[in-house]
Amino acid sequence: MSVITDFETHDVRFPTSLLLDGSDAMNPDPDYSAAYVRIGTDAGDGLEGHAFVFTIGRGNDVQVAAVQALAPYLLGRDAEELLADMGGVWRMLQHDSQLRWLGPEKGVMHMAIGAVVNALWDLKAKREGKPLWRLLAELSPEQLVDLVDFRYLSDALTREDALSILRAAEPGRAERIAQLEAEGYPAYTTGPGWLGYSDEKLERLCREAVAEGYTQVKLKVGASLEDDKRRLAIARAAVGPDIRIAVDANQRWDVADAIAWMRELAPFDIAWIEEPTSPDDVLGHAAIARGIAPMRVATGEHAANRVMFKQFLQAGALHVLQIDYTRVAGVNENVANLLLAAKFGVPVCPHAGGVGLCEAVQHLAMFDFVAVSGTMDGRMIEHVDNLHEHFATPVEMRGARYLAPRTPGAGTEMRAESIAQYEFRVYA
Amino acid sequence: MSVITDFETHDVRFPTSLLLDGSDAMNPDPDYSAAYVRIGTDAGDGLEGHAFVFTIGRGNDVQVAAVQALAPYLLGRDAEELLADMGGVWRMLQHDSQLRWLGPEKGVMHMAIGAVVNALWDLKAKREGKPLWRLLAELSPEQLVDLVDFRYLSDALTREDALSILRAAEPGRAERIAQLEAEGYPAYTTGPGWLGYSDEKLERLCREAVAEGYTQVKLKVGASLEDDKRRLAIARAAVGPDIRIAVDANQRWDVADAIAWMRELAPFDIAWIEEPTSPDDVLGHAAIARGIAPMRVATGEHAANRVMFKQFLQAGALHVLQIDYTRVAGVNENVANLLLAAKFGVPVCPHAGGVGLCEAVQHLAMFDFVAVSGTMDGRMIEHVDNLHEHFATPVEMRGARYLAPRTPGAGTEMRAESIAQYEFRVYA
Repeated sequence: MSVITDFETHDVRFPTSLLLDGSDAMNPDPDYSAAYVRIGTDAGDGLEGHAFVFTIGRGNDVQVAAVQALAPYLLGRDAEELLADMGGVWRMLQHDSQLRWLGPEKGVMHMAIGAVVNALWDLKAKREGKPLWRLLAELSPEQLVDLVDFRYLSDALTREDALSILRAAEPGRAERIAQLEAEGYPAYTTGPGWLGYSDEKLERLCREAVAEGYTQVKLKVGASLEDDKRRLAIARAAVGPDIRIAVDANQRWDVADAIAWMRELAPFDIAWIEEPTSPDDVLGHAAIARGIAPMRVATGEHAANRVMFKQFLQAGALHVLQIDYTRVAGVNENVANLLLAAKFGVPVCPHAGGVGLCEAVQHLAMFDFVAVSGTMDGRMIEHVDNLHEHFATPVEMRGARYLAPRTPGAGTEMRAESIAQYEFRVYA
Repeated sequence: MSVITDFETHDVRFPTSLLLDGSDAMNPDPDYSAAYVRIGTDAGDGLEGHAFVFTIGRGNDVQVAAVQALAPYLLGRDAEELLADMGGVWRMLQHDSQLRWLGPEKGVMHMAIGAVVNALWDLKAKREGKPLWRLLAELSPEQLVDLVDFRYLSDALTREDALSILRAAEPGRAERIAQLEAEGYPAYTTGPGWLGYSDEKLERLCREAVAEGYTQVKLKVGASLEDDKRRLAIARAAVGPDIRIAVDANQRWDVADAIAWMRELAPFDIAWIEEPTSPDDVLGHAAIARGIAPMRVATGEHAANRVMFKQFLQAGALHVLQIDYTRVAGVNENVANLLLAAKFGVPVCPHAGGVGLCEAVQHLAMFDFVAVSGTMDGRMIEHVDNLHEHFATPVEMRGARYLAPRTPGAGTEMRAESIAQYEFRVYA
């Protein structure tokens, strides 16, 4: 038996606003940040669980405070017991009636629970000597459904539904693991399309993306229709007719605006419109989807929880489901989200970028391929090429594909030197 | 000109779990708490703005941290300028792109913005020498719509729609103010129905409620169907056939459970079922509403923002809209919620109880009567008779009616002695 003896948080902020990396119609000057947690035990094996909530700057201290508030739930607890019942850990944190009031199941406290759950997943994967994707992909269907809280889902997805989906994907797991390890998983790139970039930089980055093998790029839109048309014309000319171009409005529009604006952009052959309006507006997304058909709608990086994803799917409000590694309550809730997508036959293309999101979410996409959807068709992980150097196991790309991680863990461990260098300090 | 010079927060917790006041199917042992903020200026007039976020215990420290994180947005600012443009204050806080990432517009950071906005409303009302309800009720339609952010609402409610609603209610404002000051506003009571109470206490409190003049009581349900039937039989026998009995499941059920359970309770003549399932589940509430018609569905105390209320109304998912004073981003967002309800012709029956929610939310119901809906038909404010003694201007009831407050302010100022006595301290 070992006991959880360390629970340490850090407020880590990178000054990305200086270069306008990550600039879009709603987020003109983000400072990519992490509300970071490190969990240690007295096992003497040197293994720790690391995870974080991704934020974009101010308020990261509040997010850290929320993570820190969960320390009493873990400190002094039997690590083996917790790691053997990750579904139980999730319910312990999520169903704490007093903490629940602060959401429920959304916002700062929900994301804090996600970070703590994910730190335990990182520790569990390291102890089992497997990358997270493989750890998950080798669990039985029964073990996987035990991770999921089906409360509020049963009108769309029951435990039995989930078992059926997972059992149907059991044949071929070994072959798909081998395929992943040989070929990796496809990516698309958002690198060229930040709003703050000049036309010249946009064109150059588009050409480079195609040269690297990308078959889809994504551009930020929504600040100016004329700018969007000009930039899409530049991008389409640069990539040619066979490369998909997705666009992302980052919640900029109301429903009617979204429909009108996207009809104007339709001639550029748009792969999907991402976050056209409020991430809470299921009915609005459904109206937009109807209004711009056959263009597709993608959303999810700001969907607060599985109940929101359930409704987006029920309402036909999205065609591409974008999970985020740190927005919801950890791996467990994302397993629910992957199962919901599979139930409705919708492809999952995870949100990434930010700080460490690529490193983390690749594990869930690969798990989905091996054990849930069983396919890569129409699936891609977002890729943005920055801040990877701060992680102990940065993503490895071969051309436009994520190589399957082989190092044990969830990919969420930041290098100690980076934490020390970018720890946020207020000088009073 | 005066400058905001003080921004002080307090973590105030009352040990209500000792008596099971406030116990329900999801919240067995709440400790009613306030993440409290006090804003002062150098005006030398002794006037301060006070407000809070209501929570139920653990995590109140995180909520306090979120409120405190907003201090830099106010300290050193020109108070007159801020108070003259409360719509601008709301947008400054809500549209801060970095803070927005922490919701967006939901959870801890959203409620923190609400507390700061509401503290300014308290200060503004004190400076103008009016109770908040009257301050709002005497604003012009143009001034009122300037408070509202119509982003994400325009498919259901435009600025022009809102102006029409408010202008239609302008005639008769003076008469309704006089009526309010003479008669007060109707209330219903949740006092008898907490799950933790014995059958004897339930029966006694039901009889007392009728004797006090209440025409509606509310019972918590959802933990045990047999218990609910027994308790409803006791309550119905105690109050007789003419008093309405509402029930509140506090999010306990999935959709099918809610429909089946409520069909079992239908013979007791249920005024409404409140929070049958997840407060995020618009489509679930709509399915429940269809499944139990003609019973009515009420919800809103946990609706994160105006975008959620918009959808509940669009989907026919609620028949009674329950605003909460501290769940959303302050008075401004609740003005939007009242306008949405008016647009859809749905009555607003505010959530109250907790700590200071009665003192605060009565102002919004009274404003609604004077200047928005123009009617009390089918409207009542929840009333729970506890913790009022901690407030500088506790609610005044005459029988089952809230008397219109006459003291300047928003009712949200807690007595200094209560703050000092119940300030939460961690002894390490």
